[in-house]
Amino acid sequence: MMNVLPRLAATGIALVCLQIAPASAAAKIQRVVSPGGIEAWFVQDATVPLIAMQFAFTGGSAQDPDGKAGTGSLAADTLDEGAGDLDSKTYHERLERRAIQMNFSVSRDYLRGSLRMLKENRDEAFDLLRLALTSPRFDAEPLERVRAQTLSLLRRESTSPGSIASDRFWAAAYEGHPYARPSNGTLESVPKIEAADLKDYVRRTLARDNLKIAVVGDVDAETVGKLLDKTFGGLPAKSELTPVANIDFAKTPQKFVVPLDVPQTAILFGGAGIARNDPDFMAAYIVNHIIGGGSLSSRLYHEVREKRGLVYSVSSSLIWMNHSSMFFGSTATRADKAGETLDTINAELKRISEEGPTQKELDEAKSYLKGSQMLALDSSTKFAGALVQYQLDNLGIDYLERRSGIIDAVTLDDAKRVAKRIWGNGVLSVSVGRAPVADASATPSATAPTAKN
Amino acid sequence: MMNVLPRLAATGIALVCLQIAPASAAAKIQRVVSPGGIEAWFVQDATVPLIAMQFAFTGGSAQDPDGKAGTGSLAADTLDEGAGDLDSKTYHERLERRAIQMNFSVSRDYLRGSLRMLKENRDEAFDLLRLALTSPRFDAEPLERVRAQTLSLLRRESTSPGSIASDRFWAAAYEGHPYARPSNGTLESVPKIEAADLKDYVRRTLARDNLKIAVVGDVDAETVGKLLDKTFGGLPAKSELTPVANIDFAKTPQKFVVPLDVPQTAILFGGAGIARNDPDFMAAYIVNHIIGGGSLSSRLYHEVREKRGLVYSVSSSLIWMNHSSMFFGSTATRADKAGETLDTINAELKRISEEGPTQKELDEAKSYLKGSQMLALDSSTKFAGALVQYQLDNLGIDYLERRSGIIDAVTLDDAKRVAKRIWGNGVLSVSVGRAPVADASATPSATAPTAKN
Repeated sequence: MMNVLPRLAATGIALVCLQIAPASAAAKIQRVVSPGGIEAWFVQDATVPLIAMQFAFTGGSAQDPDGKAGTGSLAADTLDEGAGDLDSKTYHERLERRAIQMNFSVSRDYLRGSLRMLKENRDEAFDLLRLALTSPRFDAEPLERVRAQTLSLLRRESTSPGSIASDRFWAAAYEGHPYARPSNGTLESVPKIEAADLKDYVRRTLARDNLKIAVVGDVDAETVGKLLDKTFGGLPAKSELTPVANIDFAKTPQKFVVPLDVPQTAILFGGAGIARNDPDFMAAYIVNHIIGGGSLSSRLYHEVREKRGLVYSVSSSLIWMNHSSMFFGSTATRADKAGETLDTINAELKRISEEGPTQKELDEAKSYLKGSQMLALDSSTKFAGALVQYQLDNLGIDYLERRSGIIDAVTLDDAKRVAKRIWGNGVLSVSVGRAPVADASATPSATAPTAKN
Repeated sequence: MMNVLPRLAATGIALVCLQIAPASAAAKIQRVVSPGGIEAWFVQDATVPLIAMQFAFTGGSAQDPDGKAGTGSLAADTLDEGAGDLDSKTYHERLERRAIQMNFSVSRDYLRGSLRMLKENRDEAFDLLRLALTSPRFDAEPLERVRAQTLSLLRRESTSPGSIASDRFWAAAYEGHPYARPSNGTLESVPKIEAADLKDYVRRTLARDNLKIAVVGDVDAETVGKLLDKTFGGLPAKSELTPVANIDFAKTPQKFVVPLDVPQTAILFGGAGIARNDPDFMAAYIVNHIIGGGSLSSRLYHEVREKRGLVYSVSSSLIWMNHSSMFFGSTATRADKAGETLDTINAELKRISEEGPTQKELDEAKSYLKGSQMLALDSSTKFAGALVQYQLDNLGIDYLERRSGIIDAVTLDDAKRVAKRIWGNGVLSVSVGRAPVADASATPSATAPTAKN
């Protein structure tokens, strides 16, 4: 795997390659810096006549004003609802007619954007994006329409065990911190958000100094440079983000049970994770794969599903954010099996924290993770998304070249040490469902769901 | 769009291209014929070091024996559960360790397969596929496990309004024909399927004369040829398919209401479609986009959702099969709105059948459909899937070159004529939900759901 990618051209725009046989070199990731100084990572790929761009501004829903959770999310959902002299209907007709795909979304740390088009519609697509980023209108009609859709979604989620569990989990994990708030807001906060809030959010967040960009597709580096300047050059040079404090995941173990009369009980569990820049991150990533990351081969899947038939699926992952990190897992089961399911999960986490994985598990996980990463890059949009993430995570443009080596370097001792570090203290769990009587009485912290809080 | 793809090399394995500048030519679709005479369409793409293959054998669930609906589906689900001298566990460990993705599925007409791997795991991946296709074991343990999963899924579906509606719709549309049976079987039929049935299904269906293949990825044509022989060369030369009769969609209009106590009423509607090889197919495809194919711009979406707020989404599509074709639409709404929703849909279909689309709608739909096709090919797996479908549909290796011209050639008169042909006779509809009293009494054909029939 060390030689999967050839040496990368790390600087400059021009790339000349001489090929006699059919193209056999793998992706060349270039760093393109525009005449105006805007940087993007770029891969030229002419297999189909498409261009995909992904980008992210630091400053997600953690930037929402107090009492107005969902501001960033609502802004993302209305950026493409009219801009410049184009009203929402005209703007959407332009996109639709050329099959230009544009999307914005907000997570706790980032506002992300995506643009995808036929090569021949390139200039129109980037120009429409420029308008959305630099002069969104937030007209009353589309704003109220999008707000109504958001509220409709929040109402549906207010009766969904998975959503209730998720809100409760984040609230318990990060009490008092912006991460505790639902990214898409609440039934109470969303009605309070005004167009002025969206404008303020956009003014503070969409800037050139907190922006990472990747472009993959049928275009050359020089043209990419020009497109970057045209599209993003009109943004302010500096963002004005409200500082967000670092925060540790809540103390574990803790157990919350939320009674709800539904057939399937939703169960979430988690605890402190490992920061992305921690030297032990890859060891943690590998042991997480062993415990709950592999679809059909993980310990949790084997113990909870295959051996005991308690659930249909169970999985876990590592989540890393700018100000915290966590281990996070989820499953769902019948109400009368919820206790046994959670007990089994806890026992497996305890076991791996004490014994670590086996050498065979470690070898197989390494082998799988080396291969699966590339398999996840199998579209220009996904490839561009990964290149943005590598920039956000400060991994370096040669990360794909180095990744297999980093995986190979993880020893069994590393894996054991990290497993103890992550799972040695038990988990915080949230169950939402029909609570068996004995359980319910034992959990004074249980509360009825009050829509979204 | 006419020049999106360069002229294609239509024959032979060798392709030599001289490139000085970065690769800027779009995909070259080659026809590869192996030394043993097995044909595949092939696109070389070295952007990431992956190879994706898709293939299809004619002979899907329409080949299931009488009383044993679900045979093909169960065979597809167990092909990779042990083969040759590898039991299920060992086989899956091999796949997992190399992150090799293999999948089989069955529709009414086809058994489809998919293989995806890192370039460096190529030989092992194709060898594992060869084993699955030529010597599947159908051991008792994995067979009973997969059967139990299928039955579990069927039990869940037996209370799902969408699944109940779908089964009822197909049963009504194609009464007495193999297409009327659920592809994944029923709670009655699946327990009756024996390993011998699976072996017989595989023996009759997996052959070289009813096989279409496409390969996209980081491999050369000569190697593809060798892989084809190794992988598929051991299959019988000829399939032994039971003849399936052509059948027209049931007479319309017809209305079925199935009472079920659920919050959302599922509504399906449809009628006769247009065969894929009908000269009017593309006109039909375009008018379907106008009526219900466009996500946010279709007439149904506008009338049913935007103007009346009756539903969250509504869409329609053309379905073409080897022995019939249909127009098919679906939506869901509150029980007390189901009547108005269906009335609105019927009114819109009647209106377009009488008036046809406008020139502006036609122009915009053509523009969108020319662009969106390429956007749907944005991964090697999806590209390979499309190339298999073009072969199954007998469209010719230059279809992607010709497609925009075919779209451009559709006139407003064509569109009007075809709209009348498809929607002039009303639809067959199935609603599953809380039937308003007046409605229920007016539909003597209503039946209670009896699990799966």
